[in-house]
Amino acid sequence: MGALRLHSLTSILASSSSTSVSAWSPSIFRRHRRVRLRPRLLTTANFSAEKEVSPVTEDRRAKRSITPRSQDFNAWYLDVIANAELADYGPVRGTMVIRPYGYAIWEAIQDYLNVKFKETGHSNMYFPQFIPYSFIEKEASHVEGFSPELALVTIGGGKELEEKLVVRPTSETIVNHMFTQWIHSYRDLPLMVNQWANVTRWEMRTKPFIRTLEFLWQEGHTAHATLEEAEKEALQMIDVYTKFAYEEAAIPVIVGRKSKVETFAGASKTYTIEAMMGDRKALQAGTSHNLGQNFSHAFGTQFTDENGQRQHVWQTSWAISTRFVGGIIMTHGDDTGLLLPPKIAPIQVIIVPIWKKDDEKTGVIDAALSVKEVLKTAGIKVKIDDSDQRTPGWKYNFWEMKGIPLRIEIGPRDVSSGSVVISRRDVPGKQGKVFGISMEASVLVAYVKDKLDEIQSSLLDRATSFRDSNIVDVNSYDELKAAISEGKWARGPWSASDKDELRVKEETGATIRCFPFEQPEGQNKACLMTGNPAEEVAIFAKSY
Amino acid sequence: MGALRLHSLTSILASSSSTSVSAWSPSIFRRHRRVRLRPRLLTTANFSAEKEVSPVTEDRRAKRSITPRSQDFNAWYLDVIANAELADYGPVRGTMVIRPYGYAIWEAIQDYLNVKFKETGHSNMYFPQFIPYSFIEKEASHVEGFSPELALVTIGGGKELEEKLVVRPTSETIVNHMFTQWIHSYRDLPLMVNQWANVTRWEMRTKPFIRTLEFLWQEGHTAHATLEEAEKEALQMIDVYTKFAYEEAAIPVIVGRKSKVETFAGASKTYTIEAMMGDRKALQAGTSHNLGQNFSHAFGTQFTDENGQRQHVWQTSWAISTRFVGGIIMTHGDDTGLLLPPKIAPIQVIIVPIWKKDDEKTGVIDAALSVKEVLKTAGIKVKIDDSDQRTPGWKYNFWEMKGIPLRIEIGPRDVSSGSVVISRRDVPGKQGKVFGISMEASVLVAYVKDKLDEIQSSLLDRATSFRDSNIVDVNSYDELKAAISEGKWARGPWSASDKDELRVKEETGATIRCFPFEQPEGQNKACLMTGNPAEEVAIFAKSY
Repeated sequence: MGALRLHSLTSILASSSSTSVSAWSPSIFRRHRRVRLRPRLLTTANFSAEKEVSPVTEDRRAKRSITPRSQDFNAWYLDVIANAELADYGPVRGTMVIRPYGYAIWEAIQDYLNVKFKETGHSNMYFPQFIPYSFIEKEASHVEGFSPELALVTIGGGKELEEKLVVRPTSETIVNHMFTQWIHSYRDLPLMVNQWANVTRWEMRTKPFIRTLEFLWQEGHTAHATLEEAEKEALQMIDVYTKFAYEEAAIPVIVGRKSKVETFAGASKTYTIEAMMGDRKALQAGTSHNLGQNFSHAFGTQFTDENGQRQHVWQTSWAISTRFVGGIIMTHGDDTGLLLPPKIAPIQVIIVPIWKKDDEKTGVIDAALSVKEVLKTAGIKVKIDDSDQRTPGWKYNFWEMKGIPLRIEIGPRDVSSGSVVISRRDVPGKQGKVFGISMEASVLVAYVKDKLDEIQSSLLDRATSFRDSNIVDVNSYDELKAAISEGKWARGPWSASDKDELRVKEETGATIRCFPFEQPEGQNKACLMTGNPAEEVAIFAKSY
Repeated sequence: MGALRLHSLTSILASSSSTSVSAWSPSIFRRHRRVRLRPRLLTTANFSAEKEVSPVTEDRRAKRSITPRSQDFNAWYLDVIANAELADYGPVRGTMVIRPYGYAIWEAIQDYLNVKFKETGHSNMYFPQFIPYSFIEKEASHVEGFSPELALVTIGGGKELEEKLVVRPTSETIVNHMFTQWIHSYRDLPLMVNQWANVTRWEMRTKPFIRTLEFLWQEGHTAHATLEEAEKEALQMIDVYTKFAYEEAAIPVIVGRKSKVETFAGASKTYTIEAMMGDRKALQAGTSHNLGQNFSHAFGTQFTDENGQRQHVWQTSWAISTRFVGGIIMTHGDDTGLLLPPKIAPIQVIIVPIWKKDDEKTGVIDAALSVKEVLKTAGIKVKIDDSDQRTPGWKYNFWEMKGIPLRIEIGPRDVSSGSVVISRRDVPGKQGKVFGISMEASVLVAYVKDKLDEIQSSLLDRATSFRDSNIVDVNSYDELKAAISEGKWARGPWSASDKDELRVKEETGATIRCFPFEQPEGQNKACLMTGNPAEEVAIFAKSY
């Protein structure tokens, strides 16, 4: 993906000014099912008048439009999404329009994962989204899990349909229907495919990116000759997700196995990556399922093995969705707004040219353009904000709010000295600002790349410390309750029943997020609930 | 996009053997709405026995499974899709599963266009697919055009919905609903976005890729301050499509303007690229619409201009869909099967190592692997078929049927002489075969690149000659009827009424495909139907 072109930049700048007058307050995200009032119309006269406002007042206004994160995490989240123009609500309750800046983050996720999926032997393809209702009913736990959430097409081409069609909530059923026709012998295995698609789940409580009626995802589906191969595949894919989370999104997820209660409807085992958000709630950020033979039995997906015997295939499925974008916002964002890890950022460097007098402008803009060209050639995603409409201060705030990792400032004095000023988004104020970096291509490129790497790992370190300081080891239910009531994650030995697990949920609001792969050393653990021997620790937390 | 990994190669090889026993005959594409019988199951014993079949018999069988194109174009088309594993039918009538090989062609289309869209200033984003029914009714000609084709969701989350939801057949209405909220002043314009998405149209007569109930496409949507800008944009995008068709897909489309009768429901003007298929029917392969202010009036999409006046925006929309894959098949394919232009081919070069004795195998495979590595490093999409299961002859036929532009054969004698044999897919038999091409990296890469270029332009030339020899200039309705009845395209001066145009359709089955941008020189044309002065020639043809 090349540098992102935001042709609607004028639109961003213009509409952000209306932001400050509260029309874009989070309330627009809380309203459903009615057409929103248009923000107060600003005439050209109003626009011109605004230019007269002193930079200081203006800057404060731009800042004020985001609720401080510490004050109200949810309001902050919705403010960031609105102000950074990541998404907007669609006209149908619970649907979301993903705006260019938000979509560019999704494209960065796609670009990385798509390569990894192909490297690990998967081909992309596409299954229809309409699934006969009868398919959903074939796998017992699947229908139980999904039937309350289905959207159904009952009319097509002006006629009532004989059989209702499900708008896919996930594709295991239609995938198995097709696999059954394509798989004949062991030579057809493994069959490993993926699709990038939209899915629909009729959710009652929605939240942009995190839980929407329609969302985008990739769903991988594979069929294998043996349980071992399916298990290996399920683990391989959760590993791809884990690496992506750590290395690209700078999110230190905890990878593990879901409890039986929390396992995907139709799976034998579900592996998950769980991320701690800024409010310390857990976000299930990706899952990989070992489906066993559940769907192959339901759909008769069989193959003839090397001995001429008919066998049911062993399967997996795995998915990451646009929810991950929400996870990035809620992991790294701060009071200033969005903060994007460089590897995921649609714009990694924003250049702000600074001039006061008209005769300074040309030199400054020329220098900015040549710096841009140098960085772009080096593969850095860079953009210039050379608009006449806003003060440098306003631009600083604006692009900080948009989460751009690095800012380069170029003024007339920098032009004469052949250097620039570089500011880090993750280190506020003077501390993050370095003066006198040479404009000389090799020096500048090396410095910028180095800083981007530094920001990337600094974000991961920061999130890891935050995570670790908010996980409490517990050995009793009382300790668990105390940790959860403090808003933390509780990690403790667990071998109790499903009923006990549900009791914890009822009484504390926390669920088992996973049995982490990384288990503490030492033997003889006692279940925090029953005192019986427990082989593993589980992590409990409240979640999205 | 790197070299395509077809992990289901064993599956391709295995299931193709069942092809020859007619289970994959085109009839599977004509049946709807019932679960297909599984192809006769081949036990391992059967597979082993097949190996005993002499290459000749086997080769003939592989060939026989495709109906000759000249004999029955439609059966040929369906046979190619089934045999090359491009697509399969979904369980719901008229839906299509796009299989990995077919999807890889779509990915090649996406990769090219996505870059061009960004270069021309568009950002990707995503609009929800559920549209309130009332939206569709807002633009009069739009609802008239689309209402017979709608799929409607009436039940969500177990409850009857208050308002029926349309599964998007196209997104102009929801786009305008959102644009109305985002556009305030002239500074917000132009607003230029695109989405890659699925769309649903309840078509009665379906055909894989060409017309399916659900298909994939991109739809661009833009808003501008003036008619001139919108017109320029609509023309720019049809130009992007035209270049893509010529330079990548080697399809010599005719670009022009649709007649009023054939204009998109809701547009002021529709520009189109029309491609001539192998059966000489026209395929509308991409369209770009100048929407005027039709949707902005219907949805109140206004902006404040530089003089402080409220104005309605001027808009465009433009789309290319998975239908284009069908166009590629029907333009270049022949009796042998698919034939892919190198720039679109998921695999550009197939390497077939040839050995008889086991002691030859290692040397041949090693040489093949090193040739593969050399080509891959040079950015060529290459694959080796080193399976033990099939004879070289079988492999030749198989990969020719799959349309791979170049084949490299490497036998023991080639290994000793350090050379390879290279065969062109587009030149059958000995004429397309060149012996003794050195394996030396620089020589081989240059040769292969050169040949791929040659095939690319040769396919375009061939299609252009075919097109030109099948367009007849006509000056009267009788001449038009004669040309159409011969299966050709008729080009002649036209200034008659919509009613006359519909009469032509009724009486000949042909429609105006477009008024081509490229008009013949010379003045004083007389309308072929009325004899009145006509400013332009139109092209009439039967179409898909």
